[in-house]
Amino acid sequence: MGKTPPEVDEYIKAHRSDFESELFELLKIPSVSADSRHDSDTARAADWVADQFTRIGFETEQIQTEGHPIVLARSSPIENAPTTMVYGHYDVQPPDPLDEWISPPFEPTVRDGDVYARGATDDKGQMLTHIKSAEAWMNACGSLPVNLIYVIEGEEEVGSENLEKFIVSDPDQLACDCVVISDTSQFGPGQPAITYGLRGIAYYELRLFGPAQDLHSGTFGGAVTNPANALNQILSQLIDTDGKIQVPGFYDEVIPLTTREREGFQALSFSEQRFQDLVGVDATSGESGFSTYERRCARPSFDVNGIWGGYQGEGAKTVLPAKASAKFSFRLVPNQNPKEITKNLEAFLHTLIPPGIRMELVDLHGAPGVVVPLDSPYIEASARAIEHGFGTSPVYIREGGSIPIVTTFASRLGAESLLLGWGQNDDNMHSPNEKFSLADYHRGIRTSACLWAELAHGA
Amino acid sequence: MGKTPPEVDEYIKAHRSDFESELFELLKIPSVSADSRHDSDTARAADWVADQFTRIGFETEQIQTEGHPIVLARSSPIENAPTTMVYGHYDVQPPDPLDEWISPPFEPTVRDGDVYARGATDDKGQMLTHIKSAEAWMNACGSLPVNLIYVIEGEEEVGSENLEKFIVSDPDQLACDCVVISDTSQFGPGQPAITYGLRGIAYYELRLFGPAQDLHSGTFGGAVTNPANALNQILSQLIDTDGKIQVPGFYDEVIPLTTREREGFQALSFSEQRFQDLVGVDATSGESGFSTYERRCARPSFDVNGIWGGYQGEGAKTVLPAKASAKFSFRLVPNQNPKEITKNLEAFLHTLIPPGIRMELVDLHGAPGVVVPLDSPYIEASARAIEHGFGTSPVYIREGGSIPIVTTFASRLGAESLLLGWGQNDDNMHSPNEKFSLADYHRGIRTSACLWAELAHGA
Repeated sequence: MGKTPPEVDEYIKAHRSDFESELFELLKIPSVSADSRHDSDTARAADWVADQFTRIGFETEQIQTEGHPIVLARSSPIENAPTTMVYGHYDVQPPDPLDEWISPPFEPTVRDGDVYARGATDDKGQMLTHIKSAEAWMNACGSLPVNLIYVIEGEEEVGSENLEKFIVSDPDQLACDCVVISDTSQFGPGQPAITYGLRGIAYYELRLFGPAQDLHSGTFGGAVTNPANALNQILSQLIDTDGKIQVPGFYDEVIPLTTREREGFQALSFSEQRFQDLVGVDATSGESGFSTYERRCARPSFDVNGIWGGYQGEGAKTVLPAKASAKFSFRLVPNQNPKEITKNLEAFLHTLIPPGIRMELVDLHGAPGVVVPLDSPYIEASARAIEHGFGTSPVYIREGGSIPIVTTFASRLGAESLLLGWGQNDDNMHSPNEKFSLADYHRGIRTSACLWAELAHGA
Repeated sequence: MGKTPPEVDEYIKAHRSDFESELFELLKIPSVSADSRHDSDTARAADWVADQFTRIGFETEQIQTEGHPIVLARSSPIENAPTTMVYGHYDVQPPDPLDEWISPPFEPTVRDGDVYARGATDDKGQMLTHIKSAEAWMNACGSLPVNLIYVIEGEEEVGSENLEKFIVSDPDQLACDCVVISDTSQFGPGQPAITYGLRGIAYYELRLFGPAQDLHSGTFGGAVTNPANALNQILSQLIDTDGKIQVPGFYDEVIPLTTREREGFQALSFSEQRFQDLVGVDATSGESGFSTYERRCARPSFDVNGIWGGYQGEGAKTVLPAKASAKFSFRLVPNQNPKEITKNLEAFLHTLIPPGIRMELVDLHGAPGVVVPLDSPYIEASARAIEHGFGTSPVYIREGGSIPIVTTFASRLGAESLLLGWGQNDDNMHSPNEKFSLADYHRGIRTSACLWAELAHGA
């Protein structure tokens, strides 16, 4: 068991006000990565972050890219200690629509214990907890119990393309045992969460071609295979009415949910009614045998993301379209292999194509799902740190979406990611009046400081 | 049996050259109804047609409409003789693209026995056969054996809206026993055709609504019913893999094809290979148990005419769309009732809608199919006239599309339409280099002249 030294906790307690002022300083910088008019602000935010590291003696550099710089910082090497990477980002979403903000987006304002500003939760506030915890260790103890590498990028909100290139170009320099990321949410107030699984994706475009040109549906309907009819027939055969995907072998490699996981999901205060209200539906449907929560994040799914063909204007046009297309995707769970699925899908589609139709299948994007085993020592270390920092055990959740950088960390660095959420679901991330609880900010710093000890000793 | 008096046939023979010159005169008038810059030309064409009737002593008027005038002409009334309406149109399609014409569209030019000009076959040339035949009777015999009413409109190429209003406003003034229309094609060269059936239509738009707004397909896919998935499932259940439409009661009122009809279809020189080449496919599909020709024009069909929902742009967008829609239509055969089908469809759709989806069904357009019984005396009279004029028996065909004005004649006037095609399938109707065979023009006039006698005596 690694406990935070009392002097570290003391330092954190004593510097509450400084930590808040510093967060506000960073929040005042409008580092909108998508808007080139803010390029000097984005550079200023990178400088501000780099300065945080140089002040505590970390070897710090700014990696120049085709876009915004990556701040890379390392603590002084300790032999025989594990190495943890902290990933975060200093860039923010554009603040529009401006007139919906109660207080201006780059003038941090505290109301009811929350600080309101663009980037408060995503990701400046959450990211800073891991810098302040290092500062506490360095200033209180003069050293850290683990090796830390910080990778703080400025392009998360615009796709992380240059970070991806940087990692791929020289993965060895980022070698680490695990990656800590605080860019997700708690499950609810007072319910800090460890997101231990993300779904993968296999995304396609299917194009069906029939007659050489659009035909009159009166003169030709019934005689010529209609590609839009065929598209409906084919897509409807990819999934059955029980929500089971029909591509041969699709479920072969799926790791079944464990009893421990399913019990954990059931213990979550997930309300079907609240979920339906949030989404605006009066009922849900999906794979039989699984709860809405499980279907949402821990089971594979099939969605038509877009479909088009023929006449979309007003009124009635009697056309038998020459072609019809759809974009569709499967969400994958560990251990499904997108490449294998593509192969099986393509073969299956060929069996479904009716006479008179030619098909093209475009593989647009594939990424496997990731899951950190619940009995991973990193997960257990994180749980103990959260108990110390928040005074309560974390809940274990999985997310339905993918976080591409997590996939990259897994595939390129072989490192598990610990997704530790300090934010709340209603923090208005990407929306006006983004906020972050200052109490959770301080709890996050305490947790992070404890995590370095736990990872040093327990993991 | 009504034979053409020899002096009428003599007159026709003697005036071949005049008849051609007059056709060329009319073809020179660019009466493009869709283009208001040609309004004076369209008016000139109406005057030219009206003049044809006044010259042979018909009571002639031009009905002014909100658009182009309708030329209405009547022969001197004969008591106890049947009344036949001739329907045609003096307006033409726009000639674009102009640079693809070998000779200018409004300078009629004869090559290999065909006259090339916009409107040659559609419908000036075909329509004029029925005016010249009346002229032959009037000038050779001084009278006609039947009462003739001519309704020659100037808006067929833009929807016949004002003609529709005119008919509906006072159907009694157009009371007749049958309507003769030459605005279709022969089955092939030397195969004059009687089109005795047209399909009807029932056209809908189906709109499906799911979540209140577009959702992220990672975070919500599998948990929330996707309207685009639902649309595929629903549309695919409207028809089975044998091409049988699944709406309850859909086939209940369908008049089965008779053995005589099916034998007639088989005797047609319909080439599956030529059809596939024409359409640009390497195979066809449709309702099992019926030939391509039968499926095309004599059996009901189901076509998705348009479909859309979600993301249609480049690349992969992970959206679970809030809504998805499709336009689709059934082609109907006699005796199906579009209203009854709408009722059954709507009830059926309600059984197919999955949880979490709301639907709207818009009935965009409905019209019953029409068929003239093959043993109708009008059909038999037409057949005898064709044998006289073309020297060969007609073939009996059905058309897959609808001709709305024919439906109006049936419903408002209770009159069967005789669709007698003198044109050819490759006459480039609506395309550059429209043409019409002059030999068929003269055969058409001979047939028409004989038809008046046949209808007087035989029908």
